[in-house]
Amino acid sequence: MSPDDSATSEDAVARAALTAVAEPGDPAMGGLLAARSPAEVWSALRAGAPLGAPPGCRDEAFRTRLPRWRARARAIDADTLLTLAGEHGVRLVLPGDPEWPSQLDPLAERRPYALWVRGAHDLRNACLRSVSMVGSRAASGYGLHVAAELSYSLAGRGWSVVSGGAYGIDGAAHRGALAGGAATVVVLACGLDISYPRGHERLFAEAAARGVLVSEYPPGTPPTRRSFLVRNRLIAALTPGTVVVEAGARSGAMNTAAHARELCRVLMAVPGPVTSALSVGCHRLLRDCQAVCVTDASDVVEQVGPIGADPGGGEGVRLEEDLLDDTAKRVLAALPSRGSAGVAGIAAGSGLDPESALRRLGLLAAAGYAERAGAGWRRRTPAGEGPGDRVRG
Amino acid sequence: MSPDDSATSEDAVARAALTAVAEPGDPAMGGLLAARSPAEVWSALRAGAPLGAPPGCRDEAFRTRLPRWRARARAIDADTLLTLAGEHGVRLVLPGDPEWPSQLDPLAERRPYALWVRGAHDLRNACLRSVSMVGSRAASGYGLHVAAELSYSLAGRGWSVVSGGAYGIDGAAHRGALAGGAATVVVLACGLDISYPRGHERLFAEAAARGVLVSEYPPGTPPTRRSFLVRNRLIAALTPGTVVVEAGARSGAMNTAAHARELCRVLMAVPGPVTSALSVGCHRLLRDCQAVCVTDASDVVEQVGPIGADPGGGEGVRLEEDLLDDTAKRVLAALPSRGSAGVAGIAAGSGLDPESALRRLGLLAAAGYAERAGAGWRRRTPAGEGPGDRVRG
Repeated sequence: MSPDDSATSEDAVARAALTAVAEPGDPAMGGLLAARSPAEVWSALRAGAPLGAPPGCRDEAFRTRLPRWRARARAIDADTLLTLAGEHGVRLVLPGDPEWPSQLDPLAERRPYALWVRGAHDLRNACLRSVSMVGSRAASGYGLHVAAELSYSLAGRGWSVVSGGAYGIDGAAHRGALAGGAATVVVLACGLDISYPRGHERLFAEAAARGVLVSEYPPGTPPTRRSFLVRNRLIAALTPGTVVVEAGARSGAMNTAAHARELCRVLMAVPGPVTSALSVGCHRLLRDCQAVCVTDASDVVEQVGPIGADPGGGEGVRLEEDLLDDTAKRVLAALPSRGSAGVAGIAAGSGLDPESALRRLGLLAAAGYAERAGAGWRRRTPAGEGPGDRVRG
Repeated sequence: MSPDDSATSEDAVARAALTAVAEPGDPAMGGLLAARSPAEVWSALRAGAPLGAPPGCRDEAFRTRLPRWRARARAIDADTLLTLAGEHGVRLVLPGDPEWPSQLDPLAERRPYALWVRGAHDLRNACLRSVSMVGSRAASGYGLHVAAELSYSLAGRGWSVVSGGAYGIDGAAHRGALAGGAATVVVLACGLDISYPRGHERLFAEAAARGVLVSEYPPGTPPTRRSFLVRNRLIAALTPGTVVVEAGARSGAMNTAAHARELCRVLMAVPGPVTSALSVGCHRLLRDCQAVCVTDASDVVEQVGPIGADPGGGEGVRLEEDLLDDTAKRVLAALPSRGSAGVAGIAAGSGLDPESALRRLGLLAAAGYAERAGAGWRRRTPAGEGPGDRVRG
């Protein structure tokens, strides 16, 4: 945890506002936040007070940003932003929060200032056993089939899929994961109140109900050409490995692959016909970029899973209930099957402090036992064991 | 050149006979030939004289072979063998001969005792700039297309293809090479008087006319299950690299690939759809065996070619005539355009001894300037420069 990771409510408001002030992943802002508290940065920008360039940032580059940031800071009402988010069921997750995916920390100065999150699942835990899967929007029937099949099989082995919510490979990957009962993670390049692409509105609703959506952009932000590229580093950073299913020689998926390599994550590529322009990128990754050739879910798990972690074709994402530790069992016992309970009530019922209870809830959610319901949590009924809300494809 | 590589005519007859006595690549026979002259081994076997196991060969293993070898040696008439070979246009190539491919020498005790060769081209030189291309007999349309296209493009860059003459990928590879004007090399697992498979009779005739056929088995030997596996090591050893186009998980092509790795040759695999059982072997080689992912001819040449050797899409296998050294130019000048001239005449005409002339002739043949014609040699007319015998597909 870096010095800025103990958030006050002032810092939370400041970070929320800063996601609307600076382009996500701007190392100049990241550098400022590494040196000062978010509240300090935010109030200095609003007041037009002097701010020095952080170490490693050229004065000139900093000077070009400052006026833009100040103008935006004056135009933003942080309370309105947070109210808008609340109205769309969007929550703010800050560095140091239990739900914060600490695997983003190696992004260093390019780490998100905060994350906007929507959905039933805990973001951190949904990513615990997950891989990123990316590829062409204009995918072939072959690519769509392989992406859906692969993510469905991964779900069967207890692995979820992180992707970008685009048409083509992304969509097939999310759908395969959902069909297999996994909490898929959709990383958007716009505000979470916006469905982009529009044709994926229903997919995003399903992902919110049984997975999680995440963005660095505050509600109300439309996507831009640049925001897709900025977003790609997040897809790579959220998981231990990225699978490229189909990709042209120059494509967004190749950009995500480059981020995965830079972050020393496992880079995997699915081969395809050499006669297909859509597989050119994958073959280049295999030949020139030390990507591992993967053809099925077991190949993928072999690369990213801890040794011995893969039960080998086991069905469903649930861990055996007997394998839960006593604390987790107590939290599970405190969860209602219908309706929902707040974290405070669950904590009291299981004899834990709220933060410990919340972390256990996240782990239970990732393991398929608990899910968010409204403002609270409830027990999750697995498919085939009674009236459940998990659908298998 | 090992001590046994200065062949007398007695040794030539002995080696010819020994190809009919012992299974090719038997390290027990290879060990004997490393220690004694072929004529000594041959006459000892015929006379039933005592022979000790060579170093590295267990006495027991040697004792089981000896009676079999002796029985075969007594049954063989070497003169008949050589006459039969001559009748089928098959010549004998011995270690140390100008036509001997010295890249076979790393096979050590498993090196061929001798090679039976048929065809217009010089074996050694046909292999100088060549790759091995292997794959499934029951190939898919995709695999056949890729093999033919790849070998045709390699021919366009001056690279020839060595393969096993089987149905499927082998056949497509040979045809692509011939169509591109390259001297393809067919390595058979039977005597060169036998067309196996029968359906490739015409292909073999074309390969003999514009390339070369080679076998370790003397004329009259039918193929066996075992002889295909023994032959595969030869395909791998003849070239600096092996390309696997399509291969099931357990297949002859995977056996050839294993030989290529063992010999530290470049191992390359062409990817295909992960949904195709015919590509499972290729993907396994990519994932587990450090095979290089290749998708076109330039990928292949990049792996096996000397740096800067590939002109990049240049047409035809001919080197620029200006690049020939003076000796080569003298030999070329001594070659007739029509009819043919013997080596002795060409040597006299170019002021060289016959052995040097023969070596230059081989190099000129590999470069596309000369070809065998009957018992002698003639100048080769490149396609498009007048009446030539090179056909482009």
